[in-house]
Amino acid sequence: MNIGFIGLGNMGRGIAENLLKAGNSLAVYNRTRSRAEALGSKGARIAATPAECCKGDFVFTMLADDAAMEAVALGDGGIVATLPAAAVHVSLSTISVALSNRLAEAHTRAGSAYVAAPVFGRPEAAAAAKLFLVAAGPAAVLARCQPLFDAIGQRTYVLGEKPAAANAVKLAGNFMLASAVESLGEALALVRKHDIAPAQFLDLITSSVFTAPPYKIYGAIIAEEKFKPAGFLLPLGLKDIRLALAAAEAVNVPLPLASLVRDHMIAALAHGYGEMDWSVIGKIAMENAGL
Amino acid sequence: MNIGFIGLGNMGRGIAENLLKAGNSLAVYNRTRSRAEALGSKGARIAATPAECCKGDFVFTMLADDAAMEAVALGDGGIVATLPAAAVHVSLSTISVALSNRLAEAHTRAGSAYVAAPVFGRPEAAAAAKLFLVAAGPAAVLARCQPLFDAIGQRTYVLGEKPAAANAVKLAGNFMLASAVESLGEALALVRKHDIAPAQFLDLITSSVFTAPPYKIYGAIIAEEKFKPAGFLLPLGLKDIRLALAAAEAVNVPLPLASLVRDHMIAALAHGYGEMDWSVIGKIAMENAGL
Amino acid sequence: MNIGFIGLGNMGRGIAENLLKAGNSLAVYNRTRSRAEALGSKGARIAATPAECCKGDFVFTMLADDAAMEAVALGDGGIVATLPAAAVHVSLSTISVALSNRLAEAHTRAGSAYVAAPVFGRPEAAAAAKLFLVAAGPAAVLARCQPLFDAIGQRTYVLGEKPAAANAVKLAGNFMLASAVESLGEALALVRKHDIAPAQFLDLITSSVFTAPPYKIYGAIIAEEKFKPAGFLLPLGLKDIRLALAAAEAVNVPLPLASLVRDHMIAALAHGYGEMDWSVIGKIAMENAGL
Amino acid sequence: MNIGFIGLGNMGRGIAENLLKAGNSLAVYNRTRSRAEALGSKGARIAATPAECCKGDFVFTMLADDAAMEAVALGDGGIVATLPAAAVHVSLSTISVALSNRLAEAHTRAGSAYVAAPVFGRPEAAAAAKLFLVAAGPAAVLARCQPLFDAIGQRTYVLGEKPAAANAVKLAGNFMLASAVESLGEALALVRKHDIAPAQFLDLITSSVFTAPPYKIYGAIIAEEKFKPAGFLLPLGLKDIRLALAAAEAVNVPLPLASLVRDHMIAALAHGYGEMDWSVIGKIAMENAGL
Repeated sequence: MNIGFIGLGNMGRGIAENLLKAGNSLAVYNRTRSRAEALGSKGARIAATPAECCKGDFVFTMLADDAAMEAVALGDGGIVATLPAAAVHVSLSTISVALSNRLAEAHTRAGSAYVAAPVFGRPEAAAAAKLFLVAAGPAAVLARCQPLFDAIGQRTYVLGEKPAAANAVKLAGNFMLASAVESLGEALALVRKHDIAPAQFLDLITSSVFTAPPYKIYGAIIAEEKFKPAGFLLPLGLKDIRLALAAAEAVNVPLPLASLVRDHMIAALAHGYGEMDWSVIGKIAMENAGL
Repeated sequence: MNIGFIGLGNMGRGIAENLLKAGNSLAVYNRTRSRAEALGSKGARIAATPAECCKGDFVFTMLADDAAMEAVALGDGGIVATLPAAAVHVSLSTISVALSNRLAEAHTRAGSAYVAAPVFGRPEAAAAAKLFLVAAGPAAVLARCQPLFDAIGQRTYVLGEKPAAANAVKLAGNFMLASAVESLGEALALVRKHDIAPAQFLDLITSSVFTAPPYKIYGAIIAEEKFKPAGFLLPLGLKDIRLALAAAEAVNVPLPLASLVRDHMIAALAHGYGEMDWSVIGKIAMENAGL
Repeated sequence: MNIGFIGLGNMGRGIAENLLKAGNSLAVYNRTRSRAEALGSKGARIAATPAECCKGDFVFTMLADDAAMEAVALGDGGIVATLPAAAVHVSLSTISVALSNRLAEAHTRAGSAYVAAPVFGRPEAAAAAKLFLVAAGPAAVLARCQPLFDAIGQRTYVLGEKPAAANAVKLAGNFMLASAVESLGEALALVRKHDIAPAQFLDLITSSVFTAPPYKIYGAIIAEEKFKPAGFLLPLGLKDIRLALAAAEAVNVPLPLASLVRDHMIAALAHGYGEMDWSVIGKIAMENAGL
Repeated sequence: MNIGFIGLGNMGRGIAENLLKAGNSLAVYNRTRSRAEALGSKGARIAATPAECCKGDFVFTMLADDAAMEAVALGDGGIVATLPAAAVHVSLSTISVALSNRLAEAHTRAGSAYVAAPVFGRPEAAAAAKLFLVAAGPAAVLARCQPLFDAIGQRTYVLGEKPAAANAVKLAGNFMLASAVESLGEALALVRKHDIAPAQFLDLITSSVFTAPPYKIYGAIIAEEKFKPAGFLLPLGLKDIRLALAAAEAVNVPLPLASLVRDHMIAALAHGYGEMDWSVIGKIAMENAGL
């Protein structure tokens, strides 16, 4: 397949490389060109503009936030304006439900196809093609995408015809992740002040009750205070919680736990932790306990 | 071994039965005598008073709360007063850190031994001897207990010499469970109002990111609104959160997420859900969203 | 003075009428024209477009939200595009800090002046010229505005040269009002369930400790459940809390109490209370207590 | 009148002195005897035990918490055991609803009378006889107390026959005070980071909308960071919020705003602010914003 790929951050690089490995022809674009060069050496063509990525059968986007997506997709010379009628825009980014709806409408008007396929997984999972994809869009279009999804993830969940449903699910999942991190942080503060070694508590709780990977990964990061280098930057995590709150507010759903997480993330930014992993809210829990 | 067992609720029954199955001689006591009779038919001797359970090598207690434990252990004719010097009191109950400290001191003064061994697992796990035990107490005493622990659980985590440490860990764990339930309830409210089927969301999230059993168990209860019969009654859940908050306050640790869960549990009681499973806070999340 | 006045809702009507009474010549515009007619009968000229309000020395705006302000001020034929160079745009609306900054820049570029002067006071205070104005902008411009401010309010607080500072203060004040309402609602739920008459509690607390008007006004509304007709609609109140949270997030300030209020306002919307006064969060506090 | 007075802390001293000034004969007791001596020099008799204060017509108690009250009132040689049948125990302390109920029953059994009369006001108000009293108890007993209440306060609110109602109201009021402090702290953090001088904001808000004394008093303390000397110590404030939460939980009322305040108070203790005024939660709001 001829594929364009826009956005080569921590996640995008691994995904693009897996699409290459699967035998596709790739045109890649990144705002900071230097990040594209590693892929160039592996056979990708480096595009000078997003539009140059829109000449094939598919264009994938993996961008940091709504603003980046709007700039790349909806402006002059953007994806919607330049993508051929038969081609598909696959949005892997965690963007707002509202923007996903706007993109769906814009592509429909333009005659091209749009699929939302946000992913669960940290950069290592992206590199290892072990992502979980949450995909929604027209069934026939999703069927065309499936071989590509198989090249980058371990499983695809299909959520129906409406792309924004996938974004809502992704935001709900990230909210649950942040909630798990918050509970880990508070629990660790509690046991530490009762003279229990964090590592012992984590070993216990993650081998008995909370056996899911996020508890192991984030528990270790918090206990060892290894918030750098960040697998997922705090400002991006805050953005996702903000989007979850917005998606909830749009349908009159209060998310008090998301509000709590948001407040702690803002406190973390105020403390200068903006370059750290979003699990740094666990550090805030410690500091609030005087640790 | 000659063992006394006091407290035959949802959890105690299964545990006592597994001690019987392992070939021990059991004297059982329950405040409501009828609950003891099923065990009587399986070979246990039914005791008329807690004191009658305190004539062997061990006495296990599995009681609802601090008040019940105080009444059984610290009053006239209670465990501390009647247990022989060489014998061991094994407290499986989720009680306060403060009471566990008092029990440790009282037993030490009385010459008997005290071990805290609270458990993780719902009634089905208790019946299947699949519990996780969190044990703390003098090493030599724990070594004597281990064969009995093996009869009732799948694994024992030893936390050191100070019994109350086990209680702190158990409370931290239950707090994390309640937090997971809260995040499930809020996430389900969010996706439901975006027209996503709860079962589909749960299947997705529990087979990808949150693969740990609590997410599957509580997710299903909330999505299907099967809060009765309760595996763990709301008032007992609230008691545990209250104890976690107290254990935290004693060492100046704020637990804002526990506060949030507590508030929702109280709202659930105010709505008349006192006979339901503690995961009914998921129903509160739905109701707050108008569902 | 020749003044244009755009936005004749609950607040705008009373303010505009007081400007008329003070002897000014008024051109008024409202999206729903019928609301302008009452003022027409009192001597105001009814304008067919916002631009027709921009031919005098001042144009006042009292609009519901950022979207309304953007449409009226920044679009084609909007205030910024049509206001004469010497004239002043006085924004009484509670809008975002970000939009106020954008308006200040746009007016500066266009050569006209911009002043932010949001007000504290309910519709009765607007009608009685008893508002408190929080004004910020170039000192010379504010001096020109002062006689008009005197016609509509009882006191003007000047906050310096930067208009957005006035908006930040207004948002902080509305946040404090919503917080007072939340505390009243929770306190009333508590005393009611201890069999204390709400009116007795309110009389006590507002004649001893909390003698400020908002406690009397909102206490009575909550105790008597007189949420209709709304002095200040819930969706507008939620908008203000959202703006306060955004203004805080922009400078890395967590506002956990604002988050709590926001969550209760969203729950109120989910319960169908969108036509009620924003103090209906007091009703949510009652309902959470089973009242 | 012959009056005993037990508890001569910040509040008790001023109150006792006003009872003296009004011409009563006073026997005073304080655990730390040195604090009683100032009153001795003004004509009070210094008692060596609480029981020595229980020989007159009235005994007033102004104690720090439930534990102190239990020790003084319910132990051997305590108030209940020693007070003459016709005499009255006037409890000015902020104690729990539950303990107030126990005291009422104990006095009734002993044949003496019990009145709860907690007060609103800081130490300066106590010294100036400007307190507000919230009194509840048998009507005839309250009538006998009224001249004494007039000697120490500016107004007495009578809440009916059941003493604990007065305690519930006092706790609700203190909860509202702490909520006002929390809102001040967060609002000040917000405006400070928008470059608005705290003093200017406070002058504005307390002369327009929030004209009640607590906003002026606590606003100034927070803005000037004058948390020492404490008018009301943080640990005592936390105790009151804990009692409010307990009184609410007893009747199934969630108080999420009280939970929030409690968490911030615990964080303040964890930061070593235990010797400061309870309004130090305003400092926590600043610190969470990086100020």
